[in-house]
Amino acid sequence: MVFECPIPIQDYDRITIAHGGGGKLTQKLIKELFEPLFDNPFLNELHDGAILPPVKGKIAFTTDSFVVSPIFFPGGNIGSLAVNGTVNDLAMCGAKPLYISLSLIIEEGLKIKDLWNILASIRESADNAGVVVVTGDTKVVEKGKGDGIFINTTGIGELMEDVNISPSRIQKGDLILINDNIAEHGIAIMSCREGISFETQIESDSRPLWSLVEKILSTGRLHVHALRDATRGGLSSVLNELAQSSNRGIVVYEERIPLRDEVKGACEILGLDPLFIANEGVFVAFVSPDIADVLLDIMRDHPFGKNASIIGEVVDEHPGVVTVKTIFGAKRVLDMLSGEQLPRIC
Amino acid sequence: MVFECPIPIQDYDRITIAHGGGGKLTQKLIKELFEPLFDNPFLNELHDGAILPPVKGKIAFTTDSFVVSPIFFPGGNIGSLAVNGTVNDLAMCGAKPLYISLSLIIEEGLKIKDLWNILASIRESADNAGVVVVTGDTKVVEKGKGDGIFINTTGIGELMEDVNISPSRIQKGDLILINDNIAEHGIAIMSCREGISFETQIESDSRPLWSLVEKILSTGRLHVHALRDATRGGLSSVLNELAQSSNRGIVVYEERIPLRDEVKGACEILGLDPLFIANEGVFVAFVSPDIADVLLDIMRDHPFGKNASIIGEVVDEHPGVVTVKTIFGAKRVLDMLSGEQLPRIC
Repeated sequence: MVFECPIPIQDYDRITIAHGGGGKLTQKLIKELFEPLFDNPFLNELHDGAILPPVKGKIAFTTDSFVVSPIFFPGGNIGSLAVNGTVNDLAMCGAKPLYISLSLIIEEGLKIKDLWNILASIRESADNAGVVVVTGDTKVVEKGKGDGIFINTTGIGELMEDVNISPSRIQKGDLILINDNIAEHGIAIMSCREGISFETQIESDSRPLWSLVEKILSTGRLHVHALRDATRGGLSSVLNELAQSSNRGIVVYEERIPLRDEVKGACEILGLDPLFIANEGVFVAFVSPDIADVLLDIMRDHPFGKNASIIGEVVDEHPGVVTVKTIFGAKRVLDMLSGEQLPRIC
Repeated sequence: MVFECPIPIQDYDRITIAHGGGGKLTQKLIKELFEPLFDNPFLNELHDGAILPPVKGKIAFTTDSFVVSPIFFPGGNIGSLAVNGTVNDLAMCGAKPLYISLSLIIEEGLKIKDLWNILASIRESADNAGVVVVTGDTKVVEKGKGDGIFINTTGIGELMEDVNISPSRIQKGDLILINDNIAEHGIAIMSCREGISFETQIESDSRPLWSLVEKILSTGRLHVHALRDATRGGLSSVLNELAQSSNRGIVVYEERIPLRDEVKGACEILGLDPLFIANEGVFVAFVSPDIADVLLDIMRDHPFGKNASIIGEVVDEHPGVVTVKTIFGAKRVLDMLSGEQLPRIC
């Protein structure tokens, strides 16, 4: 479904401070851009908030602000990223994403055409992820006090029955599955930001993961102990966080980590370690060893898990530490990202 | 309760880009500032999201991003404003505020001491409002790409039973109650921004309204048709919005609108119309005429309703239009704010 802006937008139409003032221009923005795109009974009430029907089970609740720069990049834009990022955080709790809120902080001068394109891709991504945008807010800051647009999406999901996903459930012997190639999102943003082009275009892997997670949880239930998407700080930071919060040791086998040759090459040229580069559609699952192969097959059957792999295991030694076994058999400690190699990646 | 920062913060300690990178400095920030302040079982899981117990009734869900400038002002700061703003939006839906999420966009260079003070006042305001901060996110943007700090708070509330608050329920004959003096928040921000001082300091009226709203709804139930807090755009924009969405006419009596002399004077000096100035602790209630006096008494008994007044009524004439009867008996149409007289007021 392609969304067309119902009013002709000129290329010189830009957001002004008054669009965020709560008066006539705010109303105009709502009526002309938001209402045609986010037409649903919750939002149509134009209340101070949305009234949602009762949720049966436990509720998952997550928030993320997106400040990615540039706002348009290969494979997506800040809008699709914001939707996918939030629904994925819900999925990582073992919850089916249901509703999201959408809050914009726009810098004065943003082209209304760009805003429309971002909003249209929010609607498209929400449809793909099976969520509804039920409430929102728009603020405008003066030129030079923001950077194009920042987006907050906050999500509500319904926890799947009979699952219990928590870092504290990670135990010795757990195998670690990953669903796909790493480092694509960070390299896509980086190459776009620095104007570097590669032979094949590297695109962001931003996408909604619930349909894949749901399949794994339906089969794995209580055998899936922890899930985490490897966003900011990359695979390395996520594994370190989980090693620390579970107080277990983690061993990872370098050659089993899926990484495309083009991306590996790009990392080498840019002097970046792919293990520290942000992903937007990659997650790790800590699962009982007896069910790992079954879940691996389920992953590989899904379009977002074609390159799935068992990359490591949980051990008793060195609690809180992540060790990598390199392709040559050597061992090194994989530390958490210190400093920042790629700011504003999401 | 006064919150003391557990680590000594030097005046020259500032937020760097790496604090938002998801690596070691992000972890340090979480451990040293967030964990001691927002210690609760939901947040302590350090999950991608919070897992909340089932909510019995219908759910109210609302989001707001705060970009107020300056971030500290008489009567509050961006942190207390963010909490009160969001819990008040839930209250305006007729819902008891339960949980909020907290998402920060920090400009590189913000003093960590200022961040601590904002966070401490978020905790204090959350305690006052009876809500828990259950999940969060922090992003950092480069110096000059933000403005100190922007805060998004998104809230979940439980709808009170047997209430039905909606602009569409506004009907002819409804009386319009207001709880307190108008224009205090906007004038407090404005005077602080422009370095103007008055004989008595004018403070923001930012405060949580649920305890007052709960009392009104417990007595009024289905006789309370609509509630709306008069924030951005002031009383005038809110009344216009409600006139339009209910397609009714509204008549307001100027002399009944509570306004302190100092604030009135300040408005005159600054050339601003108090009806267009933002409030943060003022709301209007559209109620059946037979219960209006009872509700007025309930308001006046509450610390946030001491100056409550019945300011107008709903009529059949001029649907969608707000008319003011001035003190001299003249009538004028009260339009919605066009343009922006006070940007970044919340």
